[in-house]
Amino acid sequence: MIFSKVYTKLKLSAIFALLFLITSCNKQSTQKTGLSESVLFTSEISEDATPAVVSRILSAGEKAISEIKFEKGTYHFYPDKGKESFEYISNHCDLMVSTPFPIEHFKNLTIDGQGSTFIFHGVMIPFLIENSENIEVKNVTIDWHEPFHSEGLIVANNNKNKTFDMTISEAFPYEIRNEQIYFIKEFYEHSVGQTILYDPERSAIAFNTEAYTSISTRTKASVRNGIENIDYKYINDERAPEYKSLGNENRLTVEQLKPGLVRVHGHKKEMPPVGMILTMKGDQGFNRISPAFRVTHTKGFNGINVNIHHAGGMGIIAENSSDLILDNFNITPSKGRMVSTTADATHFVGCSGKVVLKNSTFNNQLDDATNVHGTYQKSVDVLGDNKLGVRMMHHQQKGFVIGQPNEKIGLVRLEDSFFPYAEVTINNIEYVNSRYQIITFNENLPESFKVGDLIENLDGYPDLLVKNCKIGSNRARGLLISNPVNTVIEDNFFNTEMEAILIPVESGHWFESGNAANVIIRNNVFQDCQHGGKNRGVIRFATDDDNENIAFKNIEISNNTFNQFDNLILQVTNTDGLKFSGNTITNSGTFPMLHSENPAVKVQASKNIYFENNSYKGKASSVLELAEGMQKIEFN
Amino acid sequence: MIFSKVYTKLKLSAIFALLFLITSCNKQSTQKTGLSESVLFTSEISEDATPAVVSRILSAGEKAISEIKFEKGTYHFYPDKGKESFEYISNHCDLMVSTPFPIEHFKNLTIDGQGSTFIFHGVMIPFLIENSENIEVKNVTIDWHEPFHSEGLIVANNNKNKTFDMTISEAFPYEIRNEQIYFIKEFYEHSVGQTILYDPERSAIAFNTEAYTSISTRTKASVRNGIENIDYKYINDERAPEYKSLGNENRLTVEQLKPGLVRVHGHKKEMPPVGMILTMKGDQGFNRISPAFRVTHTKGFNGINVNIHHAGGMGIIAENSSDLILDNFNITPSKGRMVSTTADATHFVGCSGKVVLKNSTFNNQLDDATNVHGTYQKSVDVLGDNKLGVRMMHHQQKGFVIGQPNEKIGLVRLEDSFFPYAEVTINNIEYVNSRYQIITFNENLPESFKVGDLIENLDGYPDLLVKNCKIGSNRARGLLISNPVNTVIEDNFFNTEMEAILIPVESGHWFESGNAANVIIRNNVFQDCQHGGKNRGVIRFATDDDNENIAFKNIEISNNTFNQFDNLILQVTNTDGLKFSGNTITNSGTFPMLHSENPAVKVQASKNIYFENNSYKGKASSVLELAEGMQKIEFN
Repeated sequence: MIFSKVYTKLKLSAIFALLFLITSCNKQSTQKTGLSESVLFTSEISEDATPAVVSRILSAGEKAISEIKFEKGTYHFYPDKGKESFEYISNHCDLMVSTPFPIEHFKNLTIDGQGSTFIFHGVMIPFLIENSENIEVKNVTIDWHEPFHSEGLIVANNNKNKTFDMTISEAFPYEIRNEQIYFIKEFYEHSVGQTILYDPERSAIAFNTEAYTSISTRTKASVRNGIENIDYKYINDERAPEYKSLGNENRLTVEQLKPGLVRVHGHKKEMPPVGMILTMKGDQGFNRISPAFRVTHTKGFNGINVNIHHAGGMGIIAENSSDLILDNFNITPSKGRMVSTTADATHFVGCSGKVVLKNSTFNNQLDDATNVHGTYQKSVDVLGDNKLGVRMMHHQQKGFVIGQPNEKIGLVRLEDSFFPYAEVTINNIEYVNSRYQIITFNENLPESFKVGDLIENLDGYPDLLVKNCKIGSNRARGLLISNPVNTVIEDNFFNTEMEAILIPVESGHWFESGNAANVIIRNNVFQDCQHGGKNRGVIRFATDDDNENIAFKNIEISNNTFNQFDNLILQVTNTDGLKFSGNTITNSGTFPMLHSENPAVKVQASKNIYFENNSYKGKASSVLELAEGMQKIEFN
Repeated sequence: MIFSKVYTKLKLSAIFALLFLITSCNKQSTQKTGLSESVLFTSEISEDATPAVVSRILSAGEKAISEIKFEKGTYHFYPDKGKESFEYISNHCDLMVSTPFPIEHFKNLTIDGQGSTFIFHGVMIPFLIENSENIEVKNVTIDWHEPFHSEGLIVANNNKNKTFDMTISEAFPYEIRNEQIYFIKEFYEHSVGQTILYDPERSAIAFNTEAYTSISTRTKASVRNGIENIDYKYINDERAPEYKSLGNENRLTVEQLKPGLVRVHGHKKEMPPVGMILTMKGDQGFNRISPAFRVTHTKGFNGINVNIHHAGGMGIIAENSSDLILDNFNITPSKGRMVSTTADATHFVGCSGKVVLKNSTFNNQLDDATNVHGTYQKSVDVLGDNKLGVRMMHHQQKGFVIGQPNEKIGLVRLEDSFFPYAEVTINNIEYVNSRYQIITFNENLPESFKVGDLIENLDGYPDLLVKNCKIGSNRARGLLISNPVNTVIEDNFFNTEMEAILIPVESGHWFESGNAANVIIRNNVFQDCQHGGKNRGVIRFATDDDNENIAFKNIEISNNTFNQFDNLILQVTNTDGLKFSGNTITNSGTFPMLHSENPAVKVQASKNIYFENNSYKGKASSVLELAEGMQKIEFN
């Protein structure tokens, strides 16, 4: 019997252990002083390791644990007997979800797979690490039995009739309902939804996929009656999943030509080329439900020698945490799949202290390799001299608590400045619901405060290091960084579909806070980035407000190699202080140029921009393009 | 300013109040000793009363409350600033939902509307009462701005082409997507889904609606590829909402003839008659999201002088609670709507002590007037001599905890007996997830215990009184009772679409536990029940297991009046001890007879059945029909 063996081991070691019972608010707590034990799970639990692991972790209050080890092997984890909790997860869906590793209120715990592979089934979060300190997960490979995305090989197309045909392997069961295809998984299904083309020869995003994808799945519903009369008292987020269908209907139709071969009608862009693989992951707002690691309110997390082959969401999403180190933490696909994780490889929201990504590979994920930012919350009620009602504006920020008592809050009015006009500190946050919280500050709000102003946590940004990583074959960006503290990006290799590095300030869509300052980008290789086809730079600074206010400061881009098939390398805007030096720019010839009219560098609304000792061997007829009204700068 | 006025009142009364701060596990607690205050809300908060009410209730830990009163008026409640929690609600959907009245861990609290009307907007639970004692809600009318169902008036039909046309008033905004109609509400939408016909002249379910409804919305999906290869390790509930679409597609199509007039194609039964109103409430599994009252783990609840005109679910759903009294607690529609609540008027699961429904009207709801039962949970793992892993079998029982320590649990094997074969008592329940819990008992399980046996809580049934209530114009039954303790049903008027009183034991579908014993049904009037068209008795005992085991004991049916349009009055099965005496049976002539071949009474698999002093003036050619093998009984 599975349990008896494991528990025999526990009893033996317990003889030497002094155990304290800590019960606190019915939350599981580990022993913080005294002896705690190392638990070993053996392959006897491999058919479904969930119940044994959950049971031992939940009894850590009585029998403290310092280490959980697994005899090397392959372990399956099913959701059926997992510990369940409702999780509001930033940049994911919010859901009741089960985990085999409910690491909550733990301190100084190591989970060592000893080279094991963990195979997950259905909607689960493998590692749920909350309100903990010094947690390390190492030497483990994570995969899913069935992926949360599906793939179809394009075998024919007809641009005149606007159809394309694809074969769908047995790995991706499907059914067709009312001319719509649905991919059926263990415990999950998805529609076509969000799509992109992969080139199986390169195992990377297809060159110029923008010409063919996204597949146009939706169109406006033609019949609507009386809906304009519905009256919402408060801000209504029509982008939220509950409104996703409102006003829209399906544009595509799908017919089965024979089992495993379907014809798709109604796509508006160019038909996808034969030989490419269409990856489909279902509708936005519904398809990020199983990140591999969720880390929140945790001080100190190490992920070392971890391989994540798949996740229905991100590899790791960390929120409100500090001192996070990922070393040899690799995102790569398995089983011949084109796709690894279906969203970002890594993502950090409101994180501080050191955040380190090193010696890692982030390949084939369906979103950025990393994304580092805070959260703007919108003031909707002034409830007192020092008291605000705030609203979470983007549905993927629901439930996010902006900070802890005494942390520094910046008051921001983006139309005036990308930097805060005043600072206060948190006294208390009353969580009313996932969209609405009441924040009391230690200081009174300034006279100039207006309802509608945003708040951001100025203590919620990290010292960021991205070093010696391989980033590419993925959809979207490499690094998406809104960090006003310090950022060093060095010794990396980029081969991304969109920007290798995007540094934005934005407010109106994602409400992801943070400008950027003190960014060093050095000794990296940029190889054929932006091959998806967008007309944008490999490194790009961007704001979504059309003004000349400074958003970015003190930037160094030095000693990098840009070996690109196309011209545009760097786009600078709203920047004060950027030095671009010692870089080598060549033309790779890998793909045909798509935007040959471009210069290598575009600069606008910026000052103190310097170019020194760069080597340009590219094909642009004009290397540097300055926006009208800018002071003359030389490219050297 | 709204808040200042209310808080001024609070400060004044606080001068006289001795306040204690009780903080316990971050849960809100009220003052249990010492003085507590009466709070008055005035119509100044009427535009959205939610934030002020939530704020005051959540601060009850610091300033205890004995009473919350409202100046008489109409108050609106929006979800945007309501207190949010995830609720697993028996016989409803499970959801994150907001409430203005988060009555959790309160004792001795009265909420007095003083004749006010509360209008709710969108998905909310008006009163969420959990883990409390002696709570009274009185003198209040509850309604919704927009209902969770929709209505269409049948204006034409064509049985040859299988179409019918309906007009949809401005009260029910809609859109048509891919030939499907969706009704759009404030914060909610629904498809056609579950349907029934109302007769607007009678403001009741249309006579013989069974001939026309349910509208056939679904058919089997024709194309499926590889789905049979998906392998589930554990029991997989294909009736759960997440599998609702699997293998099905839409059968109906809807076209708009002109704004507010639509034609429906593809219905399989007879076309609904012109002049009737089709009520639609969306798909099963998705349409019970806003009951008016949720009461759980509460000792003592009074609902007095309460009118509920609508709810997106039940009027009240009470679970694991005791001593519940509803007096002048009325469910009736408003604003010319055919429908009041979209599910049962009242519903009690695992409730004990006294449950009283008196002097109340339960009209026009889309399910039973009441339903009283427990829960069968299925043993799936034997984890020790006294330890079981149990599974919640029906998705609407997710999250249900079967009892408290020391309560009596019956071990049941329904194929052998409808009564428990052994009893144990609860020591502890470990909640792992909403489908799986681990129960430890004070005693060892018997040798004969087998995995797959069911458990029920024998202490989770009430002394039930239903007295002086008017029940009718609703879909489905009047009273659905599985109660082995005591039940008295007297002085009521029934005019229900299906059975007036259904007494079932069932196991295979709903997993609602309870046989029945000690049931008295006296001095009631049954007027034209079963007018929906089903071929069933007005009072019916039923089991879903095809055997002759006794399920029902000690039943008295006396001095009732049955004034029915059709023959069948009483169906008895699996019963030991039933006395039917002093009843008057006449034929009303209200509707044409539908099943004139029936006798007045059918009896099978029963013993000790007596008929005395009844007056039969009906039209049945044979009054009493005994199943083969039954001992001869006379109808007197």
